[in-house]
Amino acid sequence: MASEFDLIDRYFKRRTPDGMLGVGDDCALFGVPAGMKVATSTDLLIEGRHFFPDVDPRALGHKSLAVNVSDLAAMGARPIGCLLGLALPQPREDWLSAFAEGFHGMADAAGCPLIGGDTTGNPGALAISVTVFGAVRAEAALRRDAARVGDDIWVSGTLGEADIAYRLMSGQMPPDDGLLACVRQALEWPQPRFALGQALAGIAHAAIDISDGLLQDLGHILKASRVGARLRMADMPVSPALAGVPAARLRHAVLAGGDAYELCFTAPGDRADAVRAAAARAGVAVTRIGSVEAGTGVTVLDAQGIPMTDLPAGFDHFRSP
Amino acid sequence: MASEFDLIDRYFKRRTPDGMLGVGDDCALFGVPAGMKVATSTDLLIEGRHFFPDVDPRALGHKSLAVNVSDLAAMGARPIGCLLGLALPQPREDWLSAFAEGFHGMADAAGCPLIGGDTTGNPGALAISVTVFGAVRAEAALRRDAARVGDDIWVSGTLGEADIAYRLMSGQMPPDDGLLACVRQALEWPQPRFALGQALAGIAHAAIDISDGLLQDLGHILKASRVGARLRMADMPVSPALAGVPAARLRHAVLAGGDAYELCFTAPGDRADAVRAAAARAGVAVTRIGSVEAGTGVTVLDAQGIPMTDLPAGFDHFRSP
Repeated sequence: MASEFDLIDRYFKRRTPDGMLGVGDDCALFGVPAGMKVATSTDLLIEGRHFFPDVDPRALGHKSLAVNVSDLAAMGARPIGCLLGLALPQPREDWLSAFAEGFHGMADAAGCPLIGGDTTGNPGALAISVTVFGAVRAEAALRRDAARVGDDIWVSGTLGEADIAYRLMSGQMPPDDGLLACVRQALEWPQPRFALGQALAGIAHAAIDISDGLLQDLGHILKASRVGARLRMADMPVSPALAGVPAARLRHAVLAGGDAYELCFTAPGDRADAVRAAAARAGVAVTRIGSVEAGTGVTVLDAQGIPMTDLPAGFDHFRSP
Repeated sequence: MASEFDLIDRYFKRRTPDGMLGVGDDCALFGVPAGMKVATSTDLLIEGRHFFPDVDPRALGHKSLAVNVSDLAAMGARPIGCLLGLALPQPREDWLSAFAEGFHGMADAAGCPLIGGDTTGNPGALAISVTVFGAVRAEAALRRDAARVGDDIWVSGTLGEADIAYRLMSGQMPPDDGLLACVRQALEWPQPRFALGQALAGIAHAAIDISDGLLQDLGHILKASRVGARLRMADMPVSPALAGVPAARLRHAVLAGGDAYELCFTAPGDRADAVRAAAARAGVAVTRIGSVEAGTGVTVLDAQGIPMTDLPAGFDHFRSP
């Protein structure tokens, strides 16, 4: 077996951008433009809890970084770089090569190069830690506590596909190869909305990325901002691919499905045109799904305008019993 | 069981210093003084590989951060803050409370507050990821590739105690409670040399922290700097507590013992007084153990000035067979 140092060199060491010191010293070094703050986030992904053991390693490499870049997007920050920690039960060269390819592909797309990390053996399950850095002006950062009464609530892209893919792949829905072919990409190759996040900085008030489900993640904004919300079920953006999914299952996927990595954000009603222009610049569809109200909690109105009862709870993917 | 969010709030959310945004948003935010770079490093610690399953959780919390702060020290960087990822098989409140106490204690000592993180369940072994940030002037950073022929080679503190503690606790040495009482602290409560690292920035050339053993870690400096080294065994700083350890075992612990978290650094011969003054300011003993030479590899001279043969290899703590 190749040593830790060989593996780092072979698959993860690349030329770093000018002004940075990359993989291979005690620390990586990077600069920040004057007047900007560093935005940073870390995620720990565990086999069997956050991904299936037999997942395509290219997709896993992509997603490991994508979910972190999504946190930068939710802050309105421009990606700078990332660190990767890998605890590998049994390093296989073909697996590492594919994982690195997916990871570097996402890094290149987001302008978020790998500048350092740590690899180690692991007697247990595969564990992956990723930390990302970005730059954002403090006054333009999209904070969770910045939603204001009267704001519109928006969401990017469409909701529910990743959740339906997970249900199909874990046997919680009857097999449907045609449907799975349409939705699997959303689960395994999420596209973080970093261009949209940066375009919304200075326009939107609050933002979060949807990792644990719309209601739960929006709930974090509402709690931090001490406000409530009213959503319209009929306005939720749902992919036509989900047209055949049973209504209750679909409603759950849209309102509580995890792993979406779309942005949910609030913006003043008089900035709706600016929001649409920012979304157009980023090449991402956005949909107005409700509004921020005084009070606490979320009300979801059904197609008849009646508040829905027994709303689904949040994320439960891969949760142990 | 308390939810992920409850646990974060209860044990890890604290008031963050002014100008930072801490635990509880998509990203943490921090500033960097003008003209300085961000130094960052990440480590992934796995139960059964990097620590014993029954380790005192306070010590584990301390050490999880200490080994990362040690990387900042080896770069000459001033700590800014840190992120913590915890994948917990079965969160127990008493364990978390003790772990958080040890972690925050080290954070307070180093001026490296916890500003964000991720907690998750884990069907496998406990996994801990820590990422640290510091600030350093690029031109003063202690890089691995900066050693020059003629430099003195120095080491802080003493060597070997952590390795002997590990050998005793893993049954690789006969039980000796008196000896263990003397050396256990070095393994479980390492003191990263962050004050020394900052004091050496601008004086020393290259530095590394000793996590995998002196020969292996110095080897990284030599390889990156394309130079060789000559060390004098008789000059190695060894604690009097190890006086009774058999010679071969002691030699291995000093030259190849991991988990020391002392700094090994090189500095020009005419800066020896400046090195000693910096060490005095930091309150840490430093010892000159050899010199940088042209060529490659390390020669270690024994007490008679004869090059030692069959030098021990590096780190093998907790390595799977």
